[in-house]
Amino acid sequence: MSGSSFGKLFVVTGFGESHGPAIGGVVDGCPPGLELAAADLQRDLDRRKPGQSRHTTQRRESDAVEILSGVFEGRTTGAPIGLLIRNEDQRSKDYSEIAERYRPGHADYTYDQKYGVRDYRGGGRSSARETAIRVAAGAIAKKYLAVRRGIVVRGYLSQLGPIRPQGFAWDEVDRNPFFWPCAATVADLETYMDALRKEGNSIGAAVTVVASGMPTGLGEPIFDRLDADIAHALMSINAVKGVEIGAGFGCIEQKGTEHRDEMTPDGFLSNHAGGILGGISSGQDVIARIALKPTSSLRLPGRTINARGEATEVVTTGRHDPCVGIRATPIAEAMLALVLMDHLLRQRAQNADVRPPTPAIPSAPLT
Amino acid sequence: MSGSSFGKLFVVTGFGESHGPAIGGVVDGCPPGLELAAADLQRDLDRRKPGQSRHTTQRRESDAVEILSGVFEGRTTGAPIGLLIRNEDQRSKDYSEIAERYRPGHADYTYDQKYGVRDYRGGGRSSARETAIRVAAGAIAKKYLAVRRGIVVRGYLSQLGPIRPQGFAWDEVDRNPFFWPCAATVADLETYMDALRKEGNSIGAAVTVVASGMPTGLGEPIFDRLDADIAHALMSINAVKGVEIGAGFGCIEQKGTEHRDEMTPDGFLSNHAGGILGGISSGQDVIARIALKPTSSLRLPGRTINARGEATEVVTTGRHDPCVGIRATPIAEAMLALVLMDHLLRQRAQNADVRPPTPAIPSAPLT
Amino acid sequence: MSGSSFGKLFVVTGFGESHGPAIGGVVDGCPPGLELAAADLQRDLDRRKPGQSRHTTQRRESDAVEILSGVFEGRTTGAPIGLLIRNEDQRSKDYSEIAERYRPGHADYTYDQKYGVRDYRGGGRSSARETAIRVAAGAIAKKYLAVRRGIVVRGYLSQLGPIRPQGFAWDEVDRNPFFWPCAATVADLETYMDALRKEGNSIGAAVTVVASGMPTGLGEPIFDRLDADIAHALMSINAVKGVEIGAGFGCIEQKGTEHRDEMTPDGFLSNHAGGILGGISSGQDVIARIALKPTSSLRLPGRTINARGEATEVVTTGRHDPCVGIRATPIAEAMLALVLMDHLLRQRAQNADVRPPTPAIPSAPLT
Amino acid sequence: MSGSSFGKLFVVTGFGESHGPAIGGVVDGCPPGLELAAADLQRDLDRRKPGQSRHTTQRRESDAVEILSGVFEGRTTGAPIGLLIRNEDQRSKDYSEIAERYRPGHADYTYDQKYGVRDYRGGGRSSARETAIRVAAGAIAKKYLAVRRGIVVRGYLSQLGPIRPQGFAWDEVDRNPFFWPCAATVADLETYMDALRKEGNSIGAAVTVVASGMPTGLGEPIFDRLDADIAHALMSINAVKGVEIGAGFGCIEQKGTEHRDEMTPDGFLSNHAGGILGGISSGQDVIARIALKPTSSLRLPGRTINARGEATEVVTTGRHDPCVGIRATPIAEAMLALVLMDHLLRQRAQNADVRPPTPAIPSAPLT
Repeated sequence: MSGSSFGKLFVVTGFGESHGPAIGGVVDGCPPGLELAAADLQRDLDRRKPGQSRHTTQRRESDAVEILSGVFEGRTTGAPIGLLIRNEDQRSKDYSEIAERYRPGHADYTYDQKYGVRDYRGGGRSSARETAIRVAAGAIAKKYLAVRRGIVVRGYLSQLGPIRPQGFAWDEVDRNPFFWPCAATVADLETYMDALRKEGNSIGAAVTVVASGMPTGLGEPIFDRLDADIAHALMSINAVKGVEIGAGFGCIEQKGTEHRDEMTPDGFLSNHAGGILGGISSGQDVIARIALKPTSSLRLPGRTINARGEATEVVTTGRHDPCVGIRATPIAEAMLALVLMDHLLRQRAQNADVRPPTPAIPSAPLT
Repeated sequence: MSGSSFGKLFVVTGFGESHGPAIGGVVDGCPPGLELAAADLQRDLDRRKPGQSRHTTQRRESDAVEILSGVFEGRTTGAPIGLLIRNEDQRSKDYSEIAERYRPGHADYTYDQKYGVRDYRGGGRSSARETAIRVAAGAIAKKYLAVRRGIVVRGYLSQLGPIRPQGFAWDEVDRNPFFWPCAATVADLETYMDALRKEGNSIGAAVTVVASGMPTGLGEPIFDRLDADIAHALMSINAVKGVEIGAGFGCIEQKGTEHRDEMTPDGFLSNHAGGILGGISSGQDVIARIALKPTSSLRLPGRTINARGEATEVVTTGRHDPCVGIRATPIAEAMLALVLMDHLLRQRAQNADVRPPTPAIPSAPLT
Repeated sequence: MSGSSFGKLFVVTGFGESHGPAIGGVVDGCPPGLELAAADLQRDLDRRKPGQSRHTTQRRESDAVEILSGVFEGRTTGAPIGLLIRNEDQRSKDYSEIAERYRPGHADYTYDQKYGVRDYRGGGRSSARETAIRVAAGAIAKKYLAVRRGIVVRGYLSQLGPIRPQGFAWDEVDRNPFFWPCAATVADLETYMDALRKEGNSIGAAVTVVASGMPTGLGEPIFDRLDADIAHALMSINAVKGVEIGAGFGCIEQKGTEHRDEMTPDGFLSNHAGGILGGISSGQDVIARIALKPTSSLRLPGRTINARGEATEVVTTGRHDPCVGIRATPIAEAMLALVLMDHLLRQRAQNADVRPPTPAIPSAPLT
Repeated sequence: MSGSSFGKLFVVTGFGESHGPAIGGVVDGCPPGLELAAADLQRDLDRRKPGQSRHTTQRRESDAVEILSGVFEGRTTGAPIGLLIRNEDQRSKDYSEIAERYRPGHADYTYDQKYGVRDYRGGGRSSARETAIRVAAGAIAKKYLAVRRGIVVRGYLSQLGPIRPQGFAWDEVDRNPFFWPCAATVADLETYMDALRKEGNSIGAAVTVVASGMPTGLGEPIFDRLDADIAHALMSINAVKGVEIGAGFGCIEQKGTEHRDEMTPDGFLSNHAGGILGGISSGQDVIARIALKPTSSLRLPGRTINARGEATEVVTTGRHDPCVGIRATPIAEAMLALVLMDHLLRQRAQNADVRPPTPAIPSAPLT
């Protein structure tokens, strides 16, 4: 594959299949001296882990992470940090169905085409199980960003099928199993999801991630712009089909006078740019939004072909998330944190001595 | 910067400022034996170049590209291909206005914050002038993909402000100065743009790019998925604020039964995935769409700060595209071609000997 | 650190400290379909492992490797291969001596200078313990090279202090604990090492590695030449102070008529080049030789400074190799195999379709 | 090729053939604010350039470099620096001899094997002509290292065939056309070279490069050790067959008590390590030595094969260096400077906040 690493200076490498003995990874490039313990990673792993409510997959994994290296006497040493999570609930079942038939909308067919062989148990490498390692690695980045730089990375579910929040409060996000920022509409989500589950169908969603307390100067034009690397990071999450920064697709119908974020000595007056100008952070909040497709693992039958190329039908039994967007919030936070961490290191490599002519000005408030 | 290269095996490195003596670049990793001449690159450079109609900037550049190396007796040798385009129309003017004031919505402020110094002439490195090298490099990729693999990369303007095409025909795209696929609505664009120019404002747009004749198997999970690298590539283009693949943001409200592309021995029945499953090409057409913001270079005054941090106003004179989306079509094509070329090489590195169990099936038609 | 990965397409990433819970790593980019089991890796791990004779460190490690991913039903899948070796014999001892004093010739001082913190237990990250993962990863490369391409990578100890082999036979190499190719002089080594151990001193050595059955065409000029990457790989091994290819330093006094390897249709007439011309493999055996310094972990006292910068003396107790060169043979083989594997993949990425004008000619025999 | 770039954060990409229209390159990642002009590069280019004495090739090139970007008002901006050198003396001659026959010891055969096609004019891409761009890029690194960090990179010819210097003085190095540090033996070199030229033969050589004023902490274990990257850099120079650091191959016969560099508060007592411990700079002078083979371009006939695989003979006419080691000194300096610059940036990326427990101690003097 050789596509299993992310980042240039803060580099995460992952491995592991859904139903293998373990998943794991390596975080290389973490600055030395950071206080770090497994508990720091576990918090976010627990937010991501399956079976937290009836609205996500009922697979039971404790997702207990072990730090195998790179930490000494409670602090990072600058050496690579080895991470390991044993798989526990690889339910023994009969996989002959999906071993032989390509679930439409799934990676089954493309893996067979690419590799000629496929670990079909639970989706193998294409399962979102690997995202646990992203979350663990992202938690290290989040901690460094917060403790050393005051940068806070947070996210929330910003749309579930047709339902949008009616209000917004960060405090609400961790009070419901959806990462939903609006208490008034949580019941709507519950009702919608219960009906969906009964129907045997799935639904798309959107997740928004925000980094506040941003410094100026992160991003390396012309190709490794901050927004380009964020797009790469977020689009690499399973099921993501779109990424937008700030006004995003809304800017198609904006005029220049409307889109440009005016500046005053007291701060920016708006944030259509989503905190990035010319590929470089402006000091405004970085705001990105992703679209997640509905999972294709459905118990409603679909037309497909089998491994001999013949027409057939397939249904997917087993335990699946009817809305993969729900558990995607901590994953998207992790990926944003990884990008920011990498760019923080890159920025100080090259521009350690720079003194900007102008003091940075505050971000417009998140609306 | 150290972010001036794109690709892992087919690597493009660019340099040059808007008003410096030249822009240029290096294409490293082109397979040997490809017939190649400057004319192959010039075709796409001419499609991108300014001043082709009254609706784009009136800067006059012939954008004549010189191939300095890597080609011998009309064929590539496997050595790096050096590219050079001399700048011709660096109009001598007074830049004191933008040297001292940060145009809102522009990279002026972030470049000063990051580098402490800025070549402000015509936007310097942050100008879209550098995209000419992307187009030249992309033309090499396009030629290889087409001649050696039958992969065709094309694009069109799919929305301009509020205006959408009413029909679709590839043949129309090169018959108007907008890369617009619908003859019936070209006049609407002309009228809209004339009014906009009179108003002194700018407008956003969307561009769609499509690769047809795709092989299966391109894309390297989990981080270098084909869609993730496409997102990176397209988001790295100036003014792009959003990228979507296939159904994109539309999938938020789709159900699984609707989104999943069913398969038969005769082909896929739909293409909501945009040709990519699990980060790997499925053999369907790859379809990506980008949102481009309205330029912030306006002669309508905007509030801003100057290089001493004081409140002021700025207007932008000079020659600018009122809709940067128009000239973005060949640039987006180039970036998609670069990603496909890179992944074609990566795919054959690792999977040269693979024999998939199933023959590939045809793409659903583009709708 | 962010220097914990090696290779571009066949990428090895390692982690782990000498006295932490485990060492491990990830091999990313292994082609799918290769038969692979832990036993394939164990063979070389056992050749490297400590305590095999009285002439190496008496630390007891079974070095049992676990393959955590990337293999399904006995074959590689193309997914990253996770590797884990638990540490067993982390002897609990008092490390206050080396925690406080910098052993001269060791990495103690430079780690403290670089990271400000150091896991001093058994040398931490700077210990050669990490080379077990190199050997495990290298075994995968060796297997692919041998099974799929007929390339055989082997090595031997070519000098130990003042002692050189008087004859040469590959068969002898695995018949003594020194990887020594000459039965007649093994007793000299035993005698020398016993005296050295009694003296409490250590000695340098040289190791030679050879790849036979080489294809032409591996190596990517101008910077990623095959010899340059071999030099990088071999010099990255602990204690290595020199690398030479073919005639190496001997070529300083050679004339051109002597050095150039003449060619006939029946093969090359000599191999001063060590199998590489212009950075590209010629099809001759690749031959590289490395110099390894004597370890600085001695029980003979040496002048040094402590962590407060004051003058002091230090002696090193504990279990150490009096000649680190002995166990270096399988490590050097592994690194050469990793380079060849990476370049094999790179070569076929870019030059898959090349038909050379001339058939390849045989290598000169190894002398 | 895709091996045309060197460095991770300070990245040099080169292009160009011996007899093409130009050679050139891009330096990406130079920190902003450095005073820089073409004259800074020209100094070293002139030291490398052909035809400076009767002992090097008589090709006449002014090697005048043009800086095309990345410098504004006399200072670097952080944008990539484009470099261009037009070829002037591509003598029109009959190349049919080497187009059809593989010069033994040359890259002719391996290029044809790898690429299936070859620009044979003057050696094409395999010619050492490309090293001019290394020298130009290295001069930027050298200037930054010297001006901003007080690190001085210098080199000298340390052996020519059987002749070694009898004394050593940096001041002598630039007073003779050999970069020779010993006035007393310059006449011996002249005599030797005149006889060699008359004979039509060539000879090997050694070059030593030294960086003084070194900081501690450069180098990224375990694979991107400073010595490993130096080995990569130096072995990538045409004709180099060996690299050693500090005592190098001499350490094979050293005992530990002899090799280890003892430390006192006043400094190191010796420098067998060549300034690098555990892959990290110790603050001592970095010392590396390379072996360069005798060129194979000889007018004395050699046995070879032609492009149809038939036995033949070849003689090389044209203008060649009888000892390529002579002009290699500025090239080796450049490569060492590039490595140090890259690692300086990498070091500050990850360890910007580190405060080492001990003050650095002085280097032992160069002996």
